[in-house]
Amino acid sequence: MRISFCCTDTKAQPWLDGLQAALPGAVVEVWSPSAPLADFAVVWAPPQQFLEEQTQLKGIFNIGAGVDALMKLRLPDGVPVVRLDDAGMSVQMAEYVCHAVIRHFREFDRYEADVANGKWSYRKPCLRQDFSVGVMGLGVLGERVSRALTQFEFPVMGWSRSAKAIQGVQCFAGEAGFHDFLAATRILVCLLPLTADTEGILRHDTLARLQPGAYVINVARGNHLIDQDLIALIDSGHLAGATLDVFRTEPLPAAHPFWTHPKITVTPHTSARTLREESIAQIAGKIRALHTGAPIASLAGVVDPKKGY
Amino acid sequence: MRISFCCTDTKAQPWLDGLQAALPGAVVEVWSPSAPLADFAVVWAPPQQFLEEQTQLKGIFNIGAGVDALMKLRLPDGVPVVRLDDAGMSVQMAEYVCHAVIRHFREFDRYEADVANGKWSYRKPCLRQDFSVGVMGLGVLGERVSRALTQFEFPVMGWSRSAKAIQGVQCFAGEAGFHDFLAATRILVCLLPLTADTEGILRHDTLARLQPGAYVINVARGNHLIDQDLIALIDSGHLAGATLDVFRTEPLPAAHPFWTHPKITVTPHTSARTLREESIAQIAGKIRALHTGAPIASLAGVVDPKKGY
Repeated sequence: MRISFCCTDTKAQPWLDGLQAALPGAVVEVWSPSAPLADFAVVWAPPQQFLEEQTQLKGIFNIGAGVDALMKLRLPDGVPVVRLDDAGMSVQMAEYVCHAVIRHFREFDRYEADVANGKWSYRKPCLRQDFSVGVMGLGVLGERVSRALTQFEFPVMGWSRSAKAIQGVQCFAGEAGFHDFLAATRILVCLLPLTADTEGILRHDTLARLQPGAYVINVARGNHLIDQDLIALIDSGHLAGATLDVFRTEPLPAAHPFWTHPKITVTPHTSARTLREESIAQIAGKIRALHTGAPIASLAGVVDPKKGY
Repeated sequence: MRISFCCTDTKAQPWLDGLQAALPGAVVEVWSPSAPLADFAVVWAPPQQFLEEQTQLKGIFNIGAGVDALMKLRLPDGVPVVRLDDAGMSVQMAEYVCHAVIRHFREFDRYEADVANGKWSYRKPCLRQDFSVGVMGLGVLGERVSRALTQFEFPVMGWSRSAKAIQGVQCFAGEAGFHDFLAATRILVCLLPLTADTEGILRHDTLARLQPGAYVINVARGNHLIDQDLIALIDSGHLAGATLDVFRTEPLPAAHPFWTHPKITVTPHTSARTLREESIAQIAGKIRALHTGAPIASLAGVVDPKKGY
């Protein structure tokens, strides 16, 4: 068995070592043009040439949860594309979002600013029932985040393409439920996959439907958001601010206004990092399964090319 | 029925209105010297004179979870002292502690500092298994905090005077278990009641037993901590830092080194604020119960004067 590794922006050696250790009989190698044909591919944003040349693949494994970079390519027919299924990411996402929600709701950023000025200040506690959190996207990450938020007794709502049921979460679905979901949301968390349907979904006319004083947390993809619409709605006072982990261009360009906007918190795409050990274990397990004849449908995280995630 | 309200540092009118609305038949009034004898008292740090004069009390209700201020007074024999039992405080405490733990573990403070300098930085993720959290005090608040932390998959340990069992939490008890608890702890959360036994419990010889790089979160009382010992252990490099919500003198005096220490985060005793509506509902319910003959033992939050909490 031959495994080709083709991951942009990723240090290859630890992945090669880990995959080799997990799959001792396999040849594991970094792809280069005209490389021998492999059985399985482990990829992150590979070039189109990789897919044109590798015509014998029986599975393409994406080392992230979002496959939007892969979906922009012409993919070979009939070859399953498999994304990471949790692999230690959902707990990180729950941490990131809970930290951002609590920080905003409890005004810990303002307390810190006061303390930096030597000021011992009391603020009137906000009412939890006024801070309904709406989670867009109820996949593995969105569901975990929703459950984590219910523990802090926020009213939690979720919105997804197809109807879901999560205990303690008021679920909305599809276009029919979208405006009601937005109108009931004070803190919006975006965890959608990036597809043609969701590109630019956080724009003026949707964000304007959020409750006055709403707060936006984007941990999905930068292309979900129309940057200038967010800034305009914050500056007009309709939105209270935002915490953003993902951007249209990463690293965020030096001149971008997000860097210095006083009501926007920026983090460098770190909300849920790919954890190498967990990911290697998961991918190696799935390769082993496919190699020994397991049906594709038995794997978690297989992408539906029609949906794009 | 007459209810005397005697609360230092508290705006009285909303409490009087709320208690009156909840107990329509009662006379509810702010205490002043030589006031008529009341049946029940609602107090926060009352003067000794209050207790000397009010000799007919059938119950003393403290509008906080910690009764250390009250325990310093000579209390009348046989009159039950009742502290707030959650009343919306445990969820606030879970929020505060999870925010502080996640912020430290995920290094969000450092990311913010980098972003303030226009720097898009990656940091190697820390390993969750290296960040065991040890919660001192497993009452209503400590138990809730411990459970909240387990959701983020930290190894969670608890230490209490008497042995407890909490699912997912490794529990230690008493003096016999104290050193093992400390030695296994990377993030220490203090939620103990302040008593003669626990005063100064966070001092050089205990904090030095924590794991190298340990972090201290004190949300109990300032007198649990020997301030200069904490600073010495941070400055020597044994401790990574601290988040402190409570202080020996509050407001924290302007000259105190905690204000400006780069590795200490200060908040103004805001981790779990007394929520007036929830507290009034709880206290009124207990007054009604006692007034109609319910046994004291049937109430939650009755203080054991021997233990001091």
